[in-house]
Amino acid sequence: MADHKLAFTHETLGQRVILDAGGARRHLAEEVERLGASRVMLIAGDGEARIADEVSAGLPVSLRWREVVQHVPVEVAERARSAAAEAGADLLVSVGGGSTTGLAKAVAMTTHLPIVAVPTTYAGSEATRMWGLTENREKTTGLDPAVLPVTVIYDSVLTLSLPVALSVASGFNGLAHCVDSMWAPGTDPINQALALEGIRALTTGLPKVVAEPEGIDGRDRCLYGAYLSAVSFASAGSGLHHKICHVLGGAYDLPHAQTHAIVLPHVLAYNAPAVPDAARRIARAFGARPGQKDDPAEAAVTALERLRGEVDAPRALKDVGMAEFDIPGAAARVMKVVPPSNPAPVSRESVEILLRAAWAGRTPGSRS
Amino acid sequence: MADHKLAFTHETLGQRVILDAGGARRHLAEEVERLGASRVMLIAGDGEARIADEVSAGLPVSLRWREVVQHVPVEVAERARSAAAEAGADLLVSVGGGSTTGLAKAVAMTTHLPIVAVPTTYAGSEATRMWGLTENREKTTGLDPAVLPVTVIYDSVLTLSLPVALSVASGFNGLAHCVDSMWAPGTDPINQALALEGIRALTTGLPKVVAEPEGIDGRDRCLYGAYLSAVSFASAGSGLHHKICHVLGGAYDLPHAQTHAIVLPHVLAYNAPAVPDAARRIARAFGARPGQKDDPAEAAVTALERLRGEVDAPRALKDVGMAEFDIPGAAARVMKVVPPSNPAPVSRESVEILLRAAWAGRTPGSRS
Repeated sequence: MADHKLAFTHETLGQRVILDAGGARRHLAEEVERLGASRVMLIAGDGEARIADEVSAGLPVSLRWREVVQHVPVEVAERARSAAAEAGADLLVSVGGGSTTGLAKAVAMTTHLPIVAVPTTYAGSEATRMWGLTENREKTTGLDPAVLPVTVIYDSVLTLSLPVALSVASGFNGLAHCVDSMWAPGTDPINQALALEGIRALTTGLPKVVAEPEGIDGRDRCLYGAYLSAVSFASAGSGLHHKICHVLGGAYDLPHAQTHAIVLPHVLAYNAPAVPDAARRIARAFGARPGQKDDPAEAAVTALERLRGEVDAPRALKDVGMAEFDIPGAAARVMKVVPPSNPAPVSRESVEILLRAAWAGRTPGSRS
Repeated sequence: MADHKLAFTHETLGQRVILDAGGARRHLAEEVERLGASRVMLIAGDGEARIADEVSAGLPVSLRWREVVQHVPVEVAERARSAAAEAGADLLVSVGGGSTTGLAKAVAMTTHLPIVAVPTTYAGSEATRMWGLTENREKTTGLDPAVLPVTVIYDSVLTLSLPVALSVASGFNGLAHCVDSMWAPGTDPINQALALEGIRALTTGLPKVVAEPEGIDGRDRCLYGAYLSAVSFASAGSGLHHKICHVLGGAYDLPHAQTHAIVLPHVLAYNAPAVPDAARRIARAFGARPGQKDDPAEAAVTALERLRGEVDAPRALKDVGMAEFDIPGAAARVMKVVPPSNPAPVSRESVEILLRAAWAGRTPGSRS
């Protein structure tokens, strides 16, 4: 908690969260019973078909929905909604990543059916009331309390097939949610406490996933951290980091998770000196033990860099397809969306310096 | 996060929480508008009449309810429910402490009207879905999602009349919720993260309230900490500390908040050695900077003792009306309700030693 006046509005989203490696089937059966459902619509794409069949064995499934498409095209949503109505579904169960949860949300929007989500990635959509639909290649998003899953069941056994490199990039996406939510426009001390817990979980979890990809403990921690990252991000909104990554992903088609992993240390190095209290807490959450006299911003960046090295996270935008000549244009685009509340003042020049360092894979905060 | 397997079920209770010193009136008007209410039932006892009138000025109040009685007698609840129905109320607004929030909950139980709570003490009832009713001097409690306030508005200006000694005792009651929730039967890493944030807030807030009773900053922090203590306690349930205090309060009629303040360090000293990871985090939240080689349990107890001394919290059960000859009976009663999951093994002898130390006001953890 910083020393300025304490004042905030925090929206706590009510849901039941279960984390239990190997327990998805049992917990799912209990939730179906607790919610009094007798006609389940089970949503899972082909990639999750086996997992979905396993965890739903014995459930009263009246509709098995297989058409899951990235970014939830509105035609797919419409078909799923009609099918839910025809089947008289009284509960939506989604088994899969962000697109699967997203389709369940699209159905819940209009049917107001409750959702039990069983995530198999670190996407985090299950902890938010944000929906997204794509029509004519344009994505629309919005907030609706009806789309927040009533229950989330995390079972890390279901995530073992997530490749290590993707786990790392996705975990860094979660870390970025946590770090950016420390200063995003809607930040408050509650989401900060949860974000720091998310950083702790991912910082201990990611190296374990790398060291032992089939191990449960690292996967548990990453799922837990990814959940907290979604909760804190949903509360705080997009800070500078997410605005930059949104520009890079949208205008230059860079890969989502990797871009987050590359840009995060540079934004941390940029903002941390302006928020020493947050920097000190971030450094500690990353496992550093900064002394009283250490510079908290340096300690935070060093700790993140150590983690990035340990798990071999991607380091340079040039390696994921960005052209150097696009940097000035990207900086100009970022300037249009910089949050006015960003703790450090932002100029087009400073964004360009930041992007050049991220492009080349230089040490965060360095100019050369 | 400890090193054992990560597995939990956590129930997040959805509500909007606003903390803004001096802002209650404005936020209350916004909430009434947002909820589309046009017939407010305003619940506030005589002690809060002035405050209630101020914060509700300009609202569409169709019923002003003044009968607020401790422990919510069922006759009072019935009268208030009938009045709510007759007035056609569409929103309950409570302004006051635990009894006032409790009466609003009793009305919401049967009417399912939403509640906006404006707490004026650190009671914490506003953050839980627990209700309590008293009939023939017997108190019944239960859980009901319908009684959880949809919005809580904390305005520390409204708490300035809370006397310092009561603020300290009540603040220690909050600290006890936080500490006990680190090992209570339903504990999980999410409630632990929030409990530690609650300890941080109360540890920085209470000395400020003592040093400057009319200051806002200390009151803000204490309200914030009390809120988190209620959230974490609602999630984790009663641990050993609360079981002991419940026995002492019920069988020997000791004052609630003071008993918590006296007993807490003794339970911490008792349990902390069995949970070094939690002890280390508790110590840090209390502001200690334990080194790698320090004993975390000692560090936690020492830090709490320092705070207790700083704010002159009550120290001995003999000073609040407990008779020494009741100690063996109290120990026997405690043995019947000890949570089986308590981290340190508990015997009748160990409880008696703990109670003797708390009775005499000895250093926690000492035998003489």
